[in-house]
Amino acid sequence: MEFDDVFDSFAERDWQTTTEGTVRFALVGLGWWTVDEAIPAIRETDLCEVSVLISRSVEKAERYAEEADVPHAMSGDDFHDGALAEQYDAVYIATPNAYHRAYVETAADLDKAVLCEKPMAESVETAEAMVEAAEGGDVPLMVAYRMHTEPAVRRARDLVQAGAIGEPVQVYGNNSQPILSLIDDPNQWRLDPDASGYGTSMMDLGIYPINTARFVLGADPVRVQAQMASYDEAFADVPDERSTATAVYEGGVHAAFTATQNAYDDTELTITGTEGKLTLSPAFHMECRLELDREGYSVSAEAEDVNEMTEEFDYFADRVLSDEPVYADGEHGLYDMRVLAALHESAESGETVALD
Amino acid sequence: MEFDDVFDSFAERDWQTTTEGTVRFALVGLGWWTVDEAIPAIRETDLCEVSVLISRSVEKAERYAEEADVPHAMSGDDFHDGALAEQYDAVYIATPNAYHRAYVETAADLDKAVLCEKPMAESVETAEAMVEAAEGGDVPLMVAYRMHTEPAVRRARDLVQAGAIGEPVQVYGNNSQPILSLIDDPNQWRLDPDASGYGTSMMDLGIYPINTARFVLGADPVRVQAQMASYDEAFADVPDERSTATAVYEGGVHAAFTATQNAYDDTELTITGTEGKLTLSPAFHMECRLELDREGYSVSAEAEDVNEMTEEFDYFADRVLSDEPVYADGEHGLYDMRVLAALHESAESGETVALD
Repeated sequence: MEFDDVFDSFAERDWQTTTEGTVRFALVGLGWWTVDEAIPAIRETDLCEVSVLISRSVEKAERYAEEADVPHAMSGDDFHDGALAEQYDAVYIATPNAYHRAYVETAADLDKAVLCEKPMAESVETAEAMVEAAEGGDVPLMVAYRMHTEPAVRRARDLVQAGAIGEPVQVYGNNSQPILSLIDDPNQWRLDPDASGYGTSMMDLGIYPINTARFVLGADPVRVQAQMASYDEAFADVPDERSTATAVYEGGVHAAFTATQNAYDDTELTITGTEGKLTLSPAFHMECRLELDREGYSVSAEAEDVNEMTEEFDYFADRVLSDEPVYADGEHGLYDMRVLAALHESAESGETVALD
Repeated sequence: MEFDDVFDSFAERDWQTTTEGTVRFALVGLGWWTVDEAIPAIRETDLCEVSVLISRSVEKAERYAEEADVPHAMSGDDFHDGALAEQYDAVYIATPNAYHRAYVETAADLDKAVLCEKPMAESVETAEAMVEAAEGGDVPLMVAYRMHTEPAVRRARDLVQAGAIGEPVQVYGNNSQPILSLIDDPNQWRLDPDASGYGTSMMDLGIYPINTARFVLGADPVRVQAQMASYDEAFADVPDERSTATAVYEGGVHAAFTATQNAYDDTELTITGTEGKLTLSPAFHMECRLELDREGYSVSAEAEDVNEMTEEFDYFADRVLSDEPVYADGEHGLYDMRVLAALHESAESGETVALD
């Protein structure tokens, strides 16, 4: 069939420009994501190594460095003082959302490239300051949307561009997980607006389908609505234990999203067009399976041996080593922050919010 | 596993109270739905027969009656004059939405039970008048939500009630089809607000997931938002070639819906709970497959030999013959009309609309 070639070269690194060089990373924020996912993934990269671990307490940083066989460790204060600056080329920031900014600003001062987890900050204003800091220091600032280098997502984009579903018409995305089963602590930072920002389910989970749709469609949401509510006591400080939203993207694609931190683990992104549909299911929790359905034609695939974080780190390093622009850059991440703020504003006011 | 018994008796008619008797139907509105779907389905029922066909022109009614071997035919005017009243016990109304009311009112005058297609009318006001007419004539008025007797939908409801997904948290429903490919006429009634009502995609398609969620959850939507737009010239007179909505149901379940008359054929209803999810996919176009997913457990089934219209007609006849209340009654259908009106109001005003 005419779209088989997209599936033939499914896991190809179509973004790769170099296989030479190494980017040494200082990793900031030693939660389970960094320790259990990022460090093992970086070990599998071609272009990256972990040279420094940074945590609020130097003891914690040293303990994890020893466990993970990383040569250097320091506190956040040491980092801000410029310690060990000759030991790393780039900083990966995986702290709670509200603490990203200070690390970006110091990295910019120290002339270090930055890979910052999503959402890039707790508020639009902070994200703006981060973009400014990176521009001021002339350092690359990439927001860590690992779906952008997930092969299934890249092939979904290829298929949309090749007309495999005709004209895209509508999108549905869901991201749900039981956060209290994953992290058994009602006081965790994702449920604390001082650390997370506007809320938890849309900022931490809904951002995946919203942003992945931006990437696949090549268009941004321009008009959004949302309804949110919290019922469980653990969610008393955030407005969105449950959240549901609609968005109209540039060009007129309509989208609906659901996201909750308090339900069965499930993820999906479906894009329906005039002549077919693309489904990513599962989509967002480190497994991603793509299916294309057209009249009388159905094919699916996943990149089974690919670690999304390995792809992401190698992509970032490739861009840093080649001195090429990163995607997603800070402006891209800032736009998501505006969308998230608009969703929370809509849920509170009950009105549709336009992004300008 | 503990929920296997629901799947063991998958297609059981748990609603059946009698196998005795016959309800003779006059069918009103001889479009493809009545001719190609309803008449063949009624032939397969235990309790129903078609005795009269009614169309605006008596010639058309007579032609179809001869083709389908139905003994009697008449015009709508003849029906309103009380002709052939001794030849039928009940009226099935499948005209365009705006023309349902007059047939309900005459049927009530003639003391005939009514099975009326959904949405029950083109507006809330008309639906209210229909409920009043049926009550005034003391005749049963059932709105033809065939999903209510689709085995997969009934088992989904059983599973929710049995706690198979824990506490229900969120719903996603989609109903899309390419109406201009199915009916090659840009002037068809579904695209004419005088005949269809508030619009086309939500009223004709979105009503399926919205209503089926009501049935499965046993709860009604109480707060809705929607975004709608029309782009294609054939949709110039209706606001919702594309439509996207959110709803909060009584009890706090959040829902997102997409519906379009101008895209690839696709239907889905997913209900995610704290401990699992139920998916109906395909859901609404005369095929319905149920899947239950829980941690380490996945089972799916469909009632392959069951015709949804046969089930619906036998259910209605069963209720009429036993003199038992019908479900969905006119009040139930009227509530959907209020939801549809609220969705269109929200799309126009940009504001959340509460149903009281």
